[in-house]
Amino acid sequence: MPDAATADIATVLAEVADIARPRAREGKVADYIPVLAEADPDDFGMALVDMDGTEHLYGDVDRPFAIQSISKVFSLVLAMHETDANDGVAHQLWSRVGREPSGDPFNSLVQLERERGIPRNPMINAGALVIDDILLDHCEDPKRSTMDLLETLAREPLDVDERVLDSEHGSLHRNRAMANLMASFGNLTHEVDEVLDDYVHACAIAMTTRQLARSIRFLANDGVEPDSGERILSPELAKRVAAIMFTCGTYDAAGEFAFSVGLPCKSGVAGGIVGIVPRRMGLCVWSPPLDPSGNSLAGRTALHELSQKLDLSVV
Amino acid sequence: MPDAATADIATVLAEVADIARPRAREGKVADYIPVLAEADPDDFGMALVDMDGTEHLYGDVDRPFAIQSISKVFSLVLAMHETDANDGVAHQLWSRVGREPSGDPFNSLVQLERERGIPRNPMINAGALVIDDILLDHCEDPKRSTMDLLETLAREPLDVDERVLDSEHGSLHRNRAMANLMASFGNLTHEVDEVLDDYVHACAIAMTTRQLARSIRFLANDGVEPDSGERILSPELAKRVAAIMFTCGTYDAAGEFAFSVGLPCKSGVAGGIVGIVPRRMGLCVWSPPLDPSGNSLAGRTALHELSQKLDLSVV
Amino acid sequence: MPDAATADIATVLAEVADIARPRAREGKVADYIPVLAEADPDDFGMALVDMDGTEHLYGDVDRPFAIQSISKVFSLVLAMHETDANDGVAHQLWSRVGREPSGDPFNSLVQLERERGIPRNPMINAGALVIDDILLDHCEDPKRSTMDLLETLAREPLDVDERVLDSEHGSLHRNRAMANLMASFGNLTHEVDEVLDDYVHACAIAMTTRQLARSIRFLANDGVEPDSGERILSPELAKRVAAIMFTCGTYDAAGEFAFSVGLPCKSGVAGGIVGIVPRRMGLCVWSPPLDPSGNSLAGRTALHELSQKLDLSVV
Amino acid sequence: MPDAATADIATVLAEVADIARPRAREGKVADYIPVLAEADPDDFGMALVDMDGTEHLYGDVDRPFAIQSISKVFSLVLAMHETDANDGVAHQLWSRVGREPSGDPFNSLVQLERERGIPRNPMINAGALVIDDILLDHCEDPKRSTMDLLETLAREPLDVDERVLDSEHGSLHRNRAMANLMASFGNLTHEVDEVLDDYVHACAIAMTTRQLARSIRFLANDGVEPDSGERILSPELAKRVAAIMFTCGTYDAAGEFAFSVGLPCKSGVAGGIVGIVPRRMGLCVWSPPLDPSGNSLAGRTALHELSQKLDLSVV
Repeated sequence: MPDAATADIATVLAEVADIARPRAREGKVADYIPVLAEADPDDFGMALVDMDGTEHLYGDVDRPFAIQSISKVFSLVLAMHETDANDGVAHQLWSRVGREPSGDPFNSLVQLERERGIPRNPMINAGALVIDDILLDHCEDPKRSTMDLLETLAREPLDVDERVLDSEHGSLHRNRAMANLMASFGNLTHEVDEVLDDYVHACAIAMTTRQLARSIRFLANDGVEPDSGERILSPELAKRVAAIMFTCGTYDAAGEFAFSVGLPCKSGVAGGIVGIVPRRMGLCVWSPPLDPSGNSLAGRTALHELSQKLDLSVV
Repeated sequence: MPDAATADIATVLAEVADIARPRAREGKVADYIPVLAEADPDDFGMALVDMDGTEHLYGDVDRPFAIQSISKVFSLVLAMHETDANDGVAHQLWSRVGREPSGDPFNSLVQLERERGIPRNPMINAGALVIDDILLDHCEDPKRSTMDLLETLAREPLDVDERVLDSEHGSLHRNRAMANLMASFGNLTHEVDEVLDDYVHACAIAMTTRQLARSIRFLANDGVEPDSGERILSPELAKRVAAIMFTCGTYDAAGEFAFSVGLPCKSGVAGGIVGIVPRRMGLCVWSPPLDPSGNSLAGRTALHELSQKLDLSVV
Repeated sequence: MPDAATADIATVLAEVADIARPRAREGKVADYIPVLAEADPDDFGMALVDMDGTEHLYGDVDRPFAIQSISKVFSLVLAMHETDANDGVAHQLWSRVGREPSGDPFNSLVQLERERGIPRNPMINAGALVIDDILLDHCEDPKRSTMDLLETLAREPLDVDERVLDSEHGSLHRNRAMANLMASFGNLTHEVDEVLDDYVHACAIAMTTRQLARSIRFLANDGVEPDSGERILSPELAKRVAAIMFTCGTYDAAGEFAFSVGLPCKSGVAGGIVGIVPRRMGLCVWSPPLDPSGNSLAGRTALHELSQKLDLSVV
Repeated sequence: MPDAATADIATVLAEVADIARPRAREGKVADYIPVLAEADPDDFGMALVDMDGTEHLYGDVDRPFAIQSISKVFSLVLAMHETDANDGVAHQLWSRVGREPSGDPFNSLVQLERERGIPRNPMINAGALVIDDILLDHCEDPKRSTMDLLETLAREPLDVDERVLDSEHGSLHRNRAMANLMASFGNLTHEVDEVLDDYVHACAIAMTTRQLARSIRFLANDGVEPDSGERILSPELAKRVAAIMFTCGTYDAAGEFAFSVGLPCKSGVAGGIVGIVPRRMGLCVWSPPLDPSGNSLAGRTALHELSQKLDLSVV
């Protein structure tokens, strides 16, 4: 039987769904690859997972979807973990990728050329490719290591969506352009195809709304997975990831999210958005139709309402 | 006689000063106008003002300096206040200026041309010029209104630094270029010289570290000046300003500040940085030498240390 | 009584007019200032003036119009003349303005900012402003000197179109933006308003199709005005001007003109285009409606036909 | 026994060599691939071939070198030839590549992104890649067809420099970036690797100064190879190629070449420059050290002197 607070949150979730869900109709499901275009625009899920493991759930929280760009958070975490563990110098990473908002659409080559192959941050495609290049230096099998990390965090076995994987491989021209441009500046050292292969694999990992909310929690807990007590990152590195999510996690809408949600978030093109409330919870919303900035439209509405009703904003 | 907490903070301030103050030597005092170049690099002040008015002070907290770009926060506040009061539609303002980080150095014309005269946010020069243009529509005397607002917040009479005022007028080529470019796109409706005149006036207002810490507090208090109880902005608009400070307030170093300080901040070229701790306090640090991104070097170090030692970060 | 060749050219001119004139309907008269928008789209003139002074004329060759950007050629000529005469170092000029096509629309600030205030060539607005700044160093009264040069070349008294002059003064935002940007880089040394005043004056000079064809001839004659024998420029400098016209004289359509006309040309927004056939003639066509690149549509068609029928192309 | 004119030209060539050759020391041999860096900086050749086949030669005119970007002229000629022959619509080609100078360094991605994958002209790398993509639609074996064309023009069997071929394949990051970017805009339809393979092959064709001067002659002869009388292009298309060479053939120095040489030219990074004198001759100069714009330094000096002494300039 739920206690009072949990019951209250259930009521809030239902209210939020009433407001947010209908807005999905104003959005547009991503269609740059066919398999994404087939997404059901009515899918909608919300999951909040407290530090003690209590789950507050609404809607399609157990239907898996491709995490897409949300993987960029976990790839960064893995790279920090590996470089820190192996060298004690996670900071080296920052000579190859910046930590500032890009101000440009998420796949611009202009900035990359002007800044001589150094991407603005690890949350944009170019930055994630550099992170994947770094992983190839530190992991024997980055695909396996990424999966291991996510299974550790989700505490369940996970799969890759093979249809997304195939589909993505057919639409890599722009990522390939960026990878080659960075290689021409010496900021990609492994074979472009090898890097892209890992990149696409991470994007195609399938997770549920519930699993994502659970998996992101450690960033709200000073880098320690709350159930197992396993340290994933030092408190300092965990905070670094959260800061980057806050300023760079939602494509070209970081300022808008800072105001309307006020939490470190990261969105993916399949309609998922994860967020953290420092020291309180991990959360995830999911609705496939996107707004023009590439973020889930009903998802950001839901996050805004949740932030207001539960007083989550840190700003 | 100070209570225990206050005594503790005094100790913290002394420790922070020991760490931050020596770093000023690594920075460089702004020299684009002669009067700034004459600043004393050894000036150093820190002020934290609680909601109940308690002040925690260290160093040169009563020496006035030109607030420069910190004025952009107050001009925005005034424009929101005026447009909201007069029309109930502060939102109109956002068709003329964005709310997202720029990703470009703070005075770039490239972005302004590409985005057809709409500046990225009100914390960069171009955005502040648009705000000043809007103020000319809503205030009989924007210079007077700005002063009134700041005197209301500081609760003391204030002056303009006439030497800075004269000096600035001689170095306006780039701001004039941006103003004319925006006018060519129809996003500046008053005479360019009139707009620049107000802009320079606001930059030249002289305030002390203590006054600035006090004046910024209302943004940490849902828009209400804590001593008088006067409402300056609605809670929603106050939060909007804080979000913009967080993502756009420190030139090209917003990501770095999000990590190292974790608070909404705004810096000025004379070495001041204001910040707010939601529901707790307003604060200001001051040290003239700047880092390459244009933020006070000892100031950001001090904010980082304060944030850590007093657990202020919201991320 | 005309000789055979002259009679032939008259026939060619009539044929060319039959082809070119109707195309004016597809163009659009410039309307950025009201007085230009009032131009009669049916005005159409062609003038070819041989080295010996023989004139081949068709249509409205004696109706004056504002020479607009065609003035940029004569301002450059004057600057070369003055700097060469005074210093023997016309070459100094080229440290402040380039000689290469811009590749960008004719009034872009992007390139100007990237290249630190050095305009690509003297045929774009920014470049002409630098030339005007240079003239202020070398001429007591640049307006008077420009008029003197043109009257020397046209061999007739000339006037300024006062309505164009007034009208232009109201639409200078973008030029003022560029002037201030260049001033911020130190590449404009006189008062912006003074430079713009001379710039606008040169654009507003009113000349006829016949006068322009006559006035440009000296560039086809190694720098010597053919009737008087007066040397205006050295052969080397005359060739320099012709080369710049060829590669930079028709806004963003230099490549297209090189193919379809094959002559050094310079166009103006009021619909005039001047050209030179080395060692043979000066020519001018006039028709107000413009194509999307800002060149007279019937004018460029006429030049193409003339080039083909009279075998004028140098390529 | 040479006639008087030929003897005179021999004297001129010797004089020109005295002036131009020593300047090679100020240049820098291309070194982006090792095999180019091994070039002998003292190699120097000049060849002028009249319409009747008379050759005027000086220096190392029979030593083969990789034609590099000079191949772009011949690839364009082949594409025009094939599209015109097959469809009667060479013009279709121009919806996929422009005809205007780029204004940007020769391998910039910025312009390509801004203009949605349409390169400025076929003389820059991106434009040549589009031409190669078109050739894959119209030729069964573009490599063979290109060789056939060049052997037809040179009237001698030709080879590819295998060392250059291997070397180039190792340094294609930037070209691969551009190809993928264009593919992302739908302006490259074949496999990127297939297109690059043809591109590199054409660059690696080895020809002598004498062969190149001979091979380019048809563009000075209305599109007809003068010895055989074989028509390669219509007069209109031949003129189109010449116009593009004039305005786009020498990277970022088209304006300077228009002045100092005054002829349609195309340069390659191995130090060759071809040029045409309409209705008079084809010519080629060769000297490996380059100036900062990427053109042979002694080569452009030689062309300037030849143009002056033999009165070749068309401007």
